[in-house]
Amino acid sequence: MGGDFAPAHPVHAAVEALRNFPAIASLILVGDEEQIRRELSKHGVVAADRVQIVHATQIVTMDDSPVEAVRKKKDSSMCRAVDLVKDGKADAIVSAGNTGALLAASTIKLRALPGVDRAALAVVIPKREGIFVLMDAGASVDAKPENLVDYAVMGEAYCRHILRIPDPKIGTLSNGAEEGKGNELSKTAYDLLKEAPVNFIGNIEGHALFDGAADIVVCDGFVGNIVLKTIESLSKLTFKVIKEELTANFVRLAGAMLVRSAFQNISKKFNADIYGGALLLGVNGIVIKAHGSSSALALYNSLRVAVEAVDNQVNPHIVENIAKIHDL
Amino acid sequence: MGGDFAPAHPVHAAVEALRNFPAIASLILVGDEEQIRRELSKHGVVAADRVQIVHATQIVTMDDSPVEAVRKKKDSSMCRAVDLVKDGKADAIVSAGNTGALLAASTIKLRALPGVDRAALAVVIPKREGIFVLMDAGASVDAKPENLVDYAVMGEAYCRHILRIPDPKIGTLSNGAEEGKGNELSKTAYDLLKEAPVNFIGNIEGHALFDGAADIVVCDGFVGNIVLKTIESLSKLTFKVIKEELTANFVRLAGAMLVRSAFQNISKKFNADIYGGALLLGVNGIVIKAHGSSSALALYNSLRVAVEAVDNQVNPHIVENIAKIHDL
Repeated sequence: MGGDFAPAHPVHAAVEALRNFPAIASLILVGDEEQIRRELSKHGVVAADRVQIVHATQIVTMDDSPVEAVRKKKDSSMCRAVDLVKDGKADAIVSAGNTGALLAASTIKLRALPGVDRAALAVVIPKREGIFVLMDAGASVDAKPENLVDYAVMGEAYCRHILRIPDPKIGTLSNGAEEGKGNELSKTAYDLLKEAPVNFIGNIEGHALFDGAADIVVCDGFVGNIVLKTIESLSKLTFKVIKEELTANFVRLAGAMLVRSAFQNISKKFNADIYGGALLLGVNGIVIKAHGSSSALALYNSLRVAVEAVDNQVNPHIVENIAKIHDL
Repeated sequence: MGGDFAPAHPVHAAVEALRNFPAIASLILVGDEEQIRRELSKHGVVAADRVQIVHATQIVTMDDSPVEAVRKKKDSSMCRAVDLVKDGKADAIVSAGNTGALLAASTIKLRALPGVDRAALAVVIPKREGIFVLMDAGASVDAKPENLVDYAVMGEAYCRHILRIPDPKIGTLSNGAEEGKGNELSKTAYDLLKEAPVNFIGNIEGHALFDGAADIVVCDGFVGNIVLKTIESLSKLTFKVIKEELTANFVRLAGAMLVRSAFQNISKKFNADIYGGALLLGVNGIVIKAHGSSSALALYNSLRVAVEAVDNQVNPHIVENIAKIHDL
């Protein structure tokens, strides 16, 4: 029930996911039963077999404080959905709701994985060739250097086992490429990562995000969140301005028709909707945070990521590798 | 002699600036005299009257450490140019050279303004309507909350007296819009700025940079540098990919001809070259840092900013307002 277009987009995404992902044995829609039934019927689907509804009377809004959402809205769709994962009745949760509340509900109810001090949001971002994973994209702020090492280990498991990048290269986001550049946090993390059993390639500055070698870029959640939102909003502004200019007169409209396939190609690669939300790594469960303004396509791809995450459990790998790092 | 295209681009920019800015009484080119004369002659200009050459035998490279550049390359074009400002023989310096070295030379030779603890790089960035000033864009890292207040005061003077924004609105860059969002640094700066005699409008998150109300966005230089470079590289990548797609076949090429004026309009507004480099605020002099890869147009506009900065001295306003803040 969270996000800007609930329950329409989540239900639409669920219907499509059920059609295309046979691996989903059962998809549970959590929220107002009547509204969900109405949305399902629009797609000619009735709740049965692979579609279940779990009724919830409350909704966590964007204005709710995270901790209050968990404490006072126990019958919210978000809390009920996390409960299903906690109680082993679901393997993964996808939510487009209040990020802070989802983080709080997940860490309070599911708990952190053994050895993990802080959970982190891992976001897949397209670059010149392929993608990179930015983390932490905003699960917490004022991280310690050790947290960034944990992010690297968690991101590595994500890349290897879900994104199928065999030997992911890890960089620290910094204000310069050379060793010795950075703030206190990133410089200490640099020194720790140099000694860690991961493929650490050094500092990644802003210029190198989109054409650099790093598959995983680790940073504090304050910086990661700002960078992610800057990328999102600059992309949105750029294509909005291009659209306005291309439709400003008839000559340009005619030209725009001829170059339409060019922009379709660009959209195929750079449309964030196809990357399917952020994975919350470090909690004992599979939690996927979709954008609040997610389209049905974005939520459909979040469900795809959920299926992949269930199929290729990364959490055991994370626990094992975090333990190795801490032994060192 | 610094930057990727010296001395060709700087000399070209200087020639154009002399033609168009009668306010420039004399423009001093600092560097290898022979090379500079050769470049000048390409534009049919000989050193005389309004064009002077100050010979320097050394060049600060991108690999030089900042402090060593200042200590060991005393006869570099950069150090000699800063000396000219220090000795009152020039009113402003424009450099496309090593950023760290320029910062070091400026702070060591020119000194900080009274009451200013840290200098900051102020960069003008285009947004949906107008521009915003991002600072600190990377002069220092691990700033203290009080530094961010100083940045706000310095940015305000820049906006009022050079950019002609009468009542600039100031925001703190953060990972959320609400009060209480942020890291330790930004939250403390928020509290200080609320009490300061500036038009403080609260937190600015990444999504609000390009369509938000803030004229000045203050942050630590680590974050500001990463955000600036992310914006630069994403813009570059986007338009590179668009160009590749638009020229991929004959149909699209025909369409691209028809929409050419659309992209010219976009370039007019979003081309960073027209905003003319970053102003280093907080030092006792006028120092403009142009991008290392600056075109002649970018350097020409850096010289325009220099003229405006000399015409509308902001440093006395900064000293006065910093003193007021510290009295509070």
